[in-house]
Amino acid sequence: MALIVQKFGGTSVANIERIRNVAIKVKKELDLGNKVAVVVSAMSGVTNQLVGYVNELSPLETSAAWAEYDQVVSSGEQVTSGLLALALQEMGIPARSFSGWQIPLETDSAYGKARIANIGPDDVHKTLNSGMVAVVAGFQGIHNGRVTTLGRGGSDTSAVALAAALKADRCDIYTDVDGVYTTDPRIVEGARKLEKITYEEMLELASLGAKVLQTRSVEMAMNHRVVVQVLTSFADIPGTLLVNEENIVEQKRITGIAYSRDEARITLTEIANIPGMSAALFGPLAEANINVDMIVQNVTEDGHATDITFTVPKSDLDRALAAVDKAGAKLKFKSIHADRNVAKVSIVGVGMRSHAGIALTMFRALADKNINILVISTSEIKTSVLIAEEYTELAVRALHAAFELEKA
Amino acid sequence: MALIVQKFGGTSVANIERIRNVAIKVKKELDLGNKVAVVVSAMSGVTNQLVGYVNELSPLETSAAWAEYDQVVSSGEQVTSGLLALALQEMGIPARSFSGWQIPLETDSAYGKARIANIGPDDVHKTLNSGMVAVVAGFQGIHNGRVTTLGRGGSDTSAVALAAALKADRCDIYTDVDGVYTTDPRIVEGARKLEKITYEEMLELASLGAKVLQTRSVEMAMNHRVVVQVLTSFADIPGTLLVNEENIVEQKRITGIAYSRDEARITLTEIANIPGMSAALFGPLAEANINVDMIVQNVTEDGHATDITFTVPKSDLDRALAAVDKAGAKLKFKSIHADRNVAKVSIVGVGMRSHAGIALTMFRALADKNINILVISTSEIKTSVLIAEEYTELAVRALHAAFELEKA
Repeated sequence: MALIVQKFGGTSVANIERIRNVAIKVKKELDLGNKVAVVVSAMSGVTNQLVGYVNELSPLETSAAWAEYDQVVSSGEQVTSGLLALALQEMGIPARSFSGWQIPLETDSAYGKARIANIGPDDVHKTLNSGMVAVVAGFQGIHNGRVTTLGRGGSDTSAVALAAALKADRCDIYTDVDGVYTTDPRIVEGARKLEKITYEEMLELASLGAKVLQTRSVEMAMNHRVVVQVLTSFADIPGTLLVNEENIVEQKRITGIAYSRDEARITLTEIANIPGMSAALFGPLAEANINVDMIVQNVTEDGHATDITFTVPKSDLDRALAAVDKAGAKLKFKSIHADRNVAKVSIVGVGMRSHAGIALTMFRALADKNINILVISTSEIKTSVLIAEEYTELAVRALHAAFELEKA
Repeated sequence: MALIVQKFGGTSVANIERIRNVAIKVKKELDLGNKVAVVVSAMSGVTNQLVGYVNELSPLETSAAWAEYDQVVSSGEQVTSGLLALALQEMGIPARSFSGWQIPLETDSAYGKARIANIGPDDVHKTLNSGMVAVVAGFQGIHNGRVTTLGRGGSDTSAVALAAALKADRCDIYTDVDGVYTTDPRIVEGARKLEKITYEEMLELASLGAKVLQTRSVEMAMNHRVVVQVLTSFADIPGTLLVNEENIVEQKRITGIAYSRDEARITLTEIANIPGMSAALFGPLAEANINVDMIVQNVTEDGHATDITFTVPKSDLDRALAAVDKAGAKLKFKSIHADRNVAKVSIVGVGMRSHAGIALTMFRALADKNINILVISTSEIKTSVLIAEEYTELAVRALHAAFELEKA
């Protein structure tokens, strides 16, 4: 008998018929002799509506306001948990719902984007051991007697954390895609579903914009070695398994290609190349809570001045420019250029560690299509390039072909 | 400095604009130097939608199902509590929300229609004493770590119970009518708003179908001597005050006239008039949880048989007939007649205790309009008659005129 945590996203519980369908998925797992805890998101559309109400009332500039945001927005998952428990009961399956505070799933005090501090697994274990299904409202926790939420997509993190706390044998994340693909199938017809992927690769893909799983849930799965499966609730087919690197027998050079259009580029020219310059530039950006991603710096020939290019999320560009402007007196740059029409394309794979010449293959494939590389950044298992946004699809297709990802 | 509990119903918080309007009402009370705790209902329509979801999934035949009903349905008030706290914060008024479990408002285990067992007032007091407004989600409580609800209209009861627990100076119930009237103003043009009414009278009017306050909230106000004011959130005018009898200086004979169309009549003829007959008839009805209201019994001339007439809610008529049918073998009645087209009209007033001839005035007023009385029932401060439903408005108008209720 195994203990399985299943998580169903908003589209999987979008209406009563789909909630009944989810109950059938739960029953299948029970029929295999397993214990099942289920984590549910809000019915799709509900969270957006609730957030809309909140936004009409408040700019959410205080912790007290975010606490009320959580009070309001957490209600969506609460509703789904009760409805799924009812659907299971109607199929003759004993079930009960849990809100975050009832588990308890304890978090820190960062309302609206809280991090899980501790999960008390006793009551859920008791429920499972008594032959019942535990239906847990995702996305939410408790801090000091008040409701917190984990940030958008937080139900994935709830599920993985619960799986870790319960020492579950597997955590199945049901979503509206049927697994993790070599790249976005809407762009590349030959995109192939991966049977397995390492946590590290998934982490890079998740943070690069492949929106299958919340980044934090992958981190948590990696840290606690939770076996996670990503699969669809709309068909009865296997998904993609997140595993340790040693579980992947034959490594390809590259596992997947990700892209993100949420990039904007800022270039400052001829900054005086003196100590403390980087701090003077990036300090104010950090204070404004702006996430700077790629950074390149070129020193001019005489070594006295430098150009700096960096990227920020498109939605933060205006605030980033304002922060740079404020720091301008100290930086004494010659000019500032901003470009919203850029995108980031990345190749990801643990195979990069052992295979040489991978970046070269990437650059050649892009050059063959006359795609100009604006910025390059690399990590151990990832190489990213910034290009003009209009080339995004072309670049992804060219790289998918160059690394022969359509072949199993 | 007084402590005021304000309660706002679903239409008063139906959208964001109205929630802002409620915040203004709260501010007015604060500006008088008072401490304020607010109890809110769900935004109108929300509870019906949630109940609709539940009904699609379950016939609600077990306590476990009702527990999930409460998990689902309580979310509506939770949302409003957070939204009103945000609206207050945006006006510069420190505020925080409380769900039932956070107060805690403890109840018994009767999910879906729980009764309040105890309210811990400490955290709310602490909030009020720190200069904040406490915004409490109505309708809900906690039993043994799980959410309970108090039945439809339960937010009134939450408010009165909270006022009692906090030893509040007044409990203002804001609703979509601006007070308690001598009768339904939609039927009688000259219906007059009462400045004051006794708890006992309000209790009779509430249970007779004047849907201003939940019956249980009036009982609770009476038992704890909570000063309750019923008023509208849509205008700035005084409402009706619920008070002790000694606070009403000049008593009229009759205070108000109520009516209920939710009545059906069942008559059984020529039942053998033997001991145990009533138990054989009304036992099965009680077991079926059917509320029998008016009962009359006529013995035939020879004393051997009897006719019995009684009333049940219209919606329970079919189940009542089935229950009577099952008991038929024992009862050996000759015939059974059912009539859905009846209504109950009642005159209510503590003045009935001290004024004679009031029932006679009632019967004469109805006779003058050729309205036939089918059944009569009386209590200390109430006389009710059952009549053909089509005469309802005529009867109410005739009685309103006969007792000169249009005069202050």
